[in-house]
Amino acid sequence: MPLNPIPFITRKRDGLSLSSGELDALVRAYVGGEIPDYQMSAWLMAVFLRGMNAEETAALTEAMLRSGQVLQLRSVERHRVDKHSTGGVGDKISICLAPAVAACGVAVPMICGRGLGHTGGTLDKLEAIPGYSTTLDAARFEHVVATVGVSIMGQTREIAPADARLYALRDVTGTVESIPLIVASILSKKLAEGIDGLVLDVKVGRGAFMKEISGARELADALVAVGTRAGKRVSALLTDMGTPIGLTIGNALETREAIDVLRGGGPPDTVELTSALGAEMLAQAGLPGSRDEHTERILRALRDGSALSVFTRMVEAHGGDPRVVEDHGRLPSAPHRIPVLAGRAGTVQRVDALALGVLATRMGAGRVRTEDHVDPAVGIELCAHIGDSVEADAPVAWLHARTDDPPRLWLDTVRESFAIYAEPRERATRILERRGSNQGSATTPSSEAGTTPLTV
Amino acid sequence: MPLNPIPFITRKRDGLSLSSGELDALVRAYVGGEIPDYQMSAWLMAVFLRGMNAEETAALTEAMLRSGQVLQLRSVERHRVDKHSTGGVGDKISICLAPAVAACGVAVPMICGRGLGHTGGTLDKLEAIPGYSTTLDAARFEHVVATVGVSIMGQTREIAPADARLYALRDVTGTVESIPLIVASILSKKLAEGIDGLVLDVKVGRGAFMKEISGARELADALVAVGTRAGKRVSALLTDMGTPIGLTIGNALETREAIDVLRGGGPPDTVELTSALGAEMLAQAGLPGSRDEHTERILRALRDGSALSVFTRMVEAHGGDPRVVEDHGRLPSAPHRIPVLAGRAGTVQRVDALALGVLATRMGAGRVRTEDHVDPAVGIELCAHIGDSVEADAPVAWLHARTDDPPRLWLDTVRESFAIYAEPRERATRILERRGSNQGSATTPSSEAGTTPLTV
Repeated sequence: MPLNPIPFITRKRDGLSLSSGELDALVRAYVGGEIPDYQMSAWLMAVFLRGMNAEETAALTEAMLRSGQVLQLRSVERHRVDKHSTGGVGDKISICLAPAVAACGVAVPMICGRGLGHTGGTLDKLEAIPGYSTTLDAARFEHVVATVGVSIMGQTREIAPADARLYALRDVTGTVESIPLIVASILSKKLAEGIDGLVLDVKVGRGAFMKEISGARELADALVAVGTRAGKRVSALLTDMGTPIGLTIGNALETREAIDVLRGGGPPDTVELTSALGAEMLAQAGLPGSRDEHTERILRALRDGSALSVFTRMVEAHGGDPRVVEDHGRLPSAPHRIPVLAGRAGTVQRVDALALGVLATRMGAGRVRTEDHVDPAVGIELCAHIGDSVEADAPVAWLHARTDDPPRLWLDTVRESFAIYAEPRERATRILERRGSNQGSATTPSSEAGTTPLTV
Repeated sequence: MPLNPIPFITRKRDGLSLSSGELDALVRAYVGGEIPDYQMSAWLMAVFLRGMNAEETAALTEAMLRSGQVLQLRSVERHRVDKHSTGGVGDKISICLAPAVAACGVAVPMICGRGLGHTGGTLDKLEAIPGYSTTLDAARFEHVVATVGVSIMGQTREIAPADARLYALRDVTGTVESIPLIVASILSKKLAEGIDGLVLDVKVGRGAFMKEISGARELADALVAVGTRAGKRVSALLTDMGTPIGLTIGNALETREAIDVLRGGGPPDTVELTSALGAEMLAQAGLPGSRDEHTERILRALRDGSALSVFTRMVEAHGGDPRVVEDHGRLPSAPHRIPVLAGRAGTVQRVDALALGVLATRMGAGRVRTEDHVDPAVGIELCAHIGDSVEADAPVAWLHARTDDPPRLWLDTVRESFAIYAEPRERATRILERRGSNQGSATTPSSEAGTTPLTV
């Protein structure tokens, strides 16, 4: 007999809880085509407005996880830790972070998404590398993680199919911005990777989904709580997303910056995020030593070429052209590079991440709809960041564009994104705070923890 | 360009209001097939949980009204007043009320619905009369109202098609019990009848949708407010629905009871509801005199045969067999009539309308789903009502059934529906209170008011 979802809708509507068995039945019936979208969307709106308690969020996560394949990665002997960012502007951190962590001896099986709206996606950035394939099958993915130490690819159809369907429905029914639904969406995919631990980079500020630190804390705490219930070590860093990360926005431009970091260079804030998130991941994997020692390990891997070497091997394993690491010219580049002048002299006080993220999307670097194609070459390159002095007639940024005659609005948007005043300004850390209780003690070895049946 | 409904969903989700133009566009796009059910159901759930203010409810009502035909009834020269009940058990009042009001000189263009769940529908009851057609076209309906003074028929496809679609969606998405949505659903259909005034019978108690008087007041006040905004005279009586109305539950049985009332007989509470609602309708039509005089007019029409004569002509005009008024035997009857004994002696204190309504539906007299067929013959006939003395071995009710061996549960349900104790009990009035401000002053004549464009 098909499931009648109406009692599940009305109970959630009335602020009551659903049991884990009920949530499992609901998700299963939805994925199985027994429940039409119009009932599921009414339920999603009820969840949005009535919320879910921790048990329900965990049960929904597990139900969505169980809707598909859960990787075991039995051939990977190292600890397995991943990172997930809630989305920012200029966020290329995964590309330099994952190889650096792998270079320190921790496996990073990273399955990630594409960009949507003003926040970019790691897959789009990696696909700027000629030949790089983001669509491996599970066996190949496991092989790359086992041999190289890291693989970054896109979601397969087999992983959490319930999330793909639910996300598409949420996207068109005004039910995206719900903490329990976001938590279940993120974790159902990440827990399917066969990881032992997960570090969350919860972005806060104008360029992020969470504009205020209180909301970011709530999201981080829910992610940590549900992930921990699922038997994983989970912690979160709240990081500032008021200004763009580093000096580039746009796919090939960001990949280039990540390679700079892997070569021991790169903008200081990109390096800071990489080392802080990397140290958190090493601590989760149970590596001995203090947080400062972990940070130093990551920085050393970036300086000594070991992270770059891992990255090069990962690119090769994915069919990409490894020569991009030596030669930026092999990445796609836009035909025109148009300076945007500061217009006034002074010190940069703020750079508006949201305005620049939206502009980069409009230029073709991002998507408005999931089916849109992105242009890997276009984007925005900043010449100055917070605390830098600028001259009125010197550029604050370059547009990398398909046209040599960009709309005036583009230039104005960039100029107005820079707040320039006479007073000096210190550049602040991007790391705002850490959430999660496991302070770097040893985890169970992967071979046991990773294959333990998930109990929520 | 097709309407993007997402901002309408998110704004209602966030507790903001929509303008009348926006609501009109939303309803229009939904009926036009531009908006899929899954977006509309998310919006409906947001409305359910966030509510709507009076302006929004009025605008939604008007948008739904405008989705179809609005009758003008230009050939009907009398004042036109209708009644709508929110649904009860044994509620056959329309069948005796409408002809009685018409006999007093007020036109009653009544378009009504079928029963669903434990509450019956007037259409099903009238269709127990052999040959009675509830599907007239608009021209024929107007002709019957103009010549007979009253016509009772079912909704046409042309009237408020938005309501038909929205109600079907609400029914399967847990969004039925929302006051603004109920108000818009009721009034969009009733305002399409070309009426000057409307009396609402808002039922309260176990057998009704509104279990508590506070909720009934809220619903009544919303109906009065929105109907009044639409330029109609609207008032409401709150009436008790804890016990069944009269002594019959089931389609032919109820029609028989209504005919008894039209012949000057019938159970006192059925007569009370008929005269009270009728007096309210006469007052709305602006007939001179006090409420008591209006009540007396209705009772006189029931006693002097004038109401029966109007009813007989209405039945004829709808193709029905008018001989049913003289001969109950021409109505369908069930093959078996099974007594249910009281089991104890005493005075009836309560009769559970909900339990008996649910049982009658189970016996075949009602519908669980809209596509179910009803059996006109079956039902429950009460032999005792509140305040009546009963003997232990005398029947309190008769089941009119298709089987001579009914499930024990049916008999137990009937017996347990009667609370019988030694102490005496007075039978109370069913009329609890009146809502609405127009205390019987004259209305504009129909020929003007009825054709005035609706402004909300």
